[in-house]
Amino acid sequence: MNGAESLVKTLLGSGVDVCFANPGTSEMHFVAALDRVPGMRCVLGLQENVVTGAADGYWRMADKPAATLLHCGPGLANGLAGLHDARRARSGVVNVVGDQAVYHRPFDAPLTADAEGWARGVSAFVRTSSRAEDVGADAAMAVQAARTSPGQVATLILPSDSSWNEGGVVGAALTVPAVPQADPHQVEQAARVLRSGKNVLLLLGGLALREAAQVQANRIAAATGCRLLAEGSNARIQRGQGRLMLDRVPYVNEQAVAALKGVEHLVLVNAKEPIGFFGYPGKPSRFWPPGCELHLLTRLDQDAEGALRALADALGAPKAAMPNPGPRPQAPRGALSPEGLARTVAALMPENSVIVDESVTYGRGFFPETYAAPAHDWLQNCGGAIGYGPPVAVGAAIGAGGRRVVALQADGSAMYTPQALWTQAREKLPVTTVLLSNRKYQILIGEYQNVGANPGRTAMDMLDLGNPDIGWVQLANSMGVEAAQASTLDQLGDLMAQSFARPGPFLIELMI
Amino acid sequence: MNGAESLVKTLLGSGVDVCFANPGTSEMHFVAALDRVPGMRCVLGLQENVVTGAADGYWRMADKPAATLLHCGPGLANGLAGLHDARRARSGVVNVVGDQAVYHRPFDAPLTADAEGWARGVSAFVRTSSRAEDVGADAAMAVQAARTSPGQVATLILPSDSSWNEGGVVGAALTVPAVPQADPHQVEQAARVLRSGKNVLLLLGGLALREAAQVQANRIAAATGCRLLAEGSNARIQRGQGRLMLDRVPYVNEQAVAALKGVEHLVLVNAKEPIGFFGYPGKPSRFWPPGCELHLLTRLDQDAEGALRALADALGAPKAAMPNPGPRPQAPRGALSPEGLARTVAALMPENSVIVDESVTYGRGFFPETYAAPAHDWLQNCGGAIGYGPPVAVGAAIGAGGRRVVALQADGSAMYTPQALWTQAREKLPVTTVLLSNRKYQILIGEYQNVGANPGRTAMDMLDLGNPDIGWVQLANSMGVEAAQASTLDQLGDLMAQSFARPGPFLIELMI
Repeated sequence: MNGAESLVKTLLGSGVDVCFANPGTSEMHFVAALDRVPGMRCVLGLQENVVTGAADGYWRMADKPAATLLHCGPGLANGLAGLHDARRARSGVVNVVGDQAVYHRPFDAPLTADAEGWARGVSAFVRTSSRAEDVGADAAMAVQAARTSPGQVATLILPSDSSWNEGGVVGAALTVPAVPQADPHQVEQAARVLRSGKNVLLLLGGLALREAAQVQANRIAAATGCRLLAEGSNARIQRGQGRLMLDRVPYVNEQAVAALKGVEHLVLVNAKEPIGFFGYPGKPSRFWPPGCELHLLTRLDQDAEGALRALADALGAPKAAMPNPGPRPQAPRGALSPEGLARTVAALMPENSVIVDESVTYGRGFFPETYAAPAHDWLQNCGGAIGYGPPVAVGAAIGAGGRRVVALQADGSAMYTPQALWTQAREKLPVTTVLLSNRKYQILIGEYQNVGANPGRTAMDMLDLGNPDIGWVQLANSMGVEAAQASTLDQLGDLMAQSFARPGPFLIELMI
Repeated sequence: MNGAESLVKTLLGSGVDVCFANPGTSEMHFVAALDRVPGMRCVLGLQENVVTGAADGYWRMADKPAATLLHCGPGLANGLAGLHDARRARSGVVNVVGDQAVYHRPFDAPLTADAEGWARGVSAFVRTSSRAEDVGADAAMAVQAARTSPGQVATLILPSDSSWNEGGVVGAALTVPAVPQADPHQVEQAARVLRSGKNVLLLLGGLALREAAQVQANRIAAATGCRLLAEGSNARIQRGQGRLMLDRVPYVNEQAVAALKGVEHLVLVNAKEPIGFFGYPGKPSRFWPPGCELHLLTRLDQDAEGALRALADALGAPKAAMPNPGPRPQAPRGALSPEGLARTVAALMPENSVIVDESVTYGRGFFPETYAAPAHDWLQNCGGAIGYGPPVAVGAAIGAGGRRVVALQADGSAMYTPQALWTQAREKLPVTTVLLSNRKYQILIGEYQNVGANPGRTAMDMLDLGNPDIGWVQLANSMGVEAAQASTLDQLGDLMAQSFARPGPFLIELMI
């Protein structure tokens, strides 16, 4: 057995049976092993951020890692932004990077680069398997690292001679460390704060946003009157009927400061301190008010549901009915608006849809309009590297096993990773993309104005996606995805309903 | 004057007046400065490899650096593959990366990443300007580093508060170090070898492939009978009528070994030792024969033309007429073939065209068919990170100031950077892309067969770009580039001639 075969068998034995791949020469022995060892679903991406973003989306919905397969340092480099977003989403990824043969590396051939160095910035685990004998054991450790709470990027670099040499040994699946529980004093401290009668906000992130944890958070809020809020960007929030009506920390600095105004105690539950996406002249980096005390109920890797249950129990909080968001909205008609789009999605989405949200400026108000939608999952960009949406939609569709994915996608962002549409078509994934075509980097026009002026001609050239306009219907068609244009809510609703009745992907270019 | 304004003024004062940009929030003060300081041509790319690849192509044709403008660590990451190729092409690039404000960095906001760490693998110079006062002087040093022979990537990281703070000082343009001359003993040693009567090969790279250096190399070859050969991949070869009929080191291992068979002395002129792109089981990494002696006439940074002239003089070599490749070929008609494509290009290209070659497998035999073309420049992918072609075509068109660019572009590679077509349309660049549509990673099918078998179904899924086929005419049209399909040499010739008569870009999808 060669090293490549030991890798495939180890991955399968460790429960990794999906591989998002963009292989090259140095990965051909891995590809050949796939022919000999059945059981691995291989999904091709035509650019590496499609591969890494798909692995991110897969983890978010499947709660287990996929593998990637990338080609040498430059292939890794092309996928780093997707891995950056995955790291910020706390997604587990087994990131396999083929590389030059160990003995060939000193010749500094054209593709030779510092793959290890590039991997470190996004990976909790980096290892190069320099002998075929080590590949299996190293791969098992990489899977273990990827699955370690809360989920991590684990990079395994595979020189091609470690793949082709005989001597491979299948690595036994390793036990994943148990998710750490919150220390009792963390729970006690939070209980003390919540009993104080002060203005308390529980900031929820990570797995604190799953339904089971929300049930516990709801008990606490009902018993104490504390507020609940989600982080600004979240890997996956379970929402809709039967779930909390959670809002999130606003993106815009002033709005975020206003949202946290008056809070005296901020309790973090799988969440980081709420801070600005960027620093701005004369504006605060921290969103919480001066004098507000911060408390940690759970670190990012600790069990949020268990801690919230323990906290609710400590408070003597009874079971509490989840808040009723009212009836599901009807699909609105008429002129487009952000709220109208959100209500259309809420009205028409199939039960258990997955929303992949990269709507950027247009989507900042989508949350309140979708509380009364059927139960669904809502995925956001946690790392800020744009273009996360189309690849994450690929992986989420595969990880969610047939559930409908609705991708709310800004045009400027989509242009970073349009190749994901091709993978959606090839794999016949149930992804409906609503492409928000405003033909500009709207977010930057706002940021430019924050700088203190309206953009002049040279600046506007840097912010404008028109001239030429991008034809999203043609672009989608060119990659095998059916598509149509809509410019009213009526058209949007009709196309959306049609797309939900089809098995494969569809793109609606929404002229906003 | 704020830091951003001092940067723009320093760049202009140091001779950098083109900026390829994909800015974000942290770059808005730079963008605003562009409105206030005239003279910088700003070119927007919708993905960062378009930006960095364009800067590479610009250097190759203009022999001076452009600036880039990238957004934080992840924006840099998205452009690393282009910078990797630029580094391997020895192209000078002033790589400007905006970043979090210095005081905001400790908050570890979503986009925060190790930009310095990522930059190091591709940059000869990395500096973070952490005060507005330093930006100008740092930028002048970055330009100096970029222009230092043979050309280097210089990365300047610009925290946003260094941009917006007042106190900026324009940096005086710095003198670029003179190109080092070869030591006399290097020339004497090469002369001794060439007088020995042994089988001598001069391997030419970098600036040894410009016309003036070729004239000197031709004197040497005519006087001594030595062979001349170009490196396997070259940033820019001046070719066609009046230039040498140079072949290059073949990509395929066996062919390369055969091409160097019998060589007793290998003299490197701005070239690296000829080695394999990859290691393969049982095949040599080194292409030169056992017992062959290697000699260095010039290091990569030394003056090739001067050394070749000194060597020719030392040998007493008289002036020599450049070899006559015969008459320009006529455009062939009929069925497609690689040779037919190359002859069509040779027959129809305007004088002084620039060929951007990412034809991969289909283009391995293009060189001999184009010796008798009019004078032209031929650009290749030196780093092996594919997708280099469309962005380099953008930068080459701008750097060459209106000369026609003919991009010979494989489909699999083009899918890494299709966004470059949009920039070609927006800037109305004279780029004719011949898109070689074979709907597979042909190079990998060859590599797979080298592994020892024909690909099975799972493997073939990783090597096949069909299902769905990519519609390149639609894809180009979606980004504002006119396009048409050709499947015979007649159609190709007609479309090529039409495209040369138009001012802007055109794409020919060639069904090979």
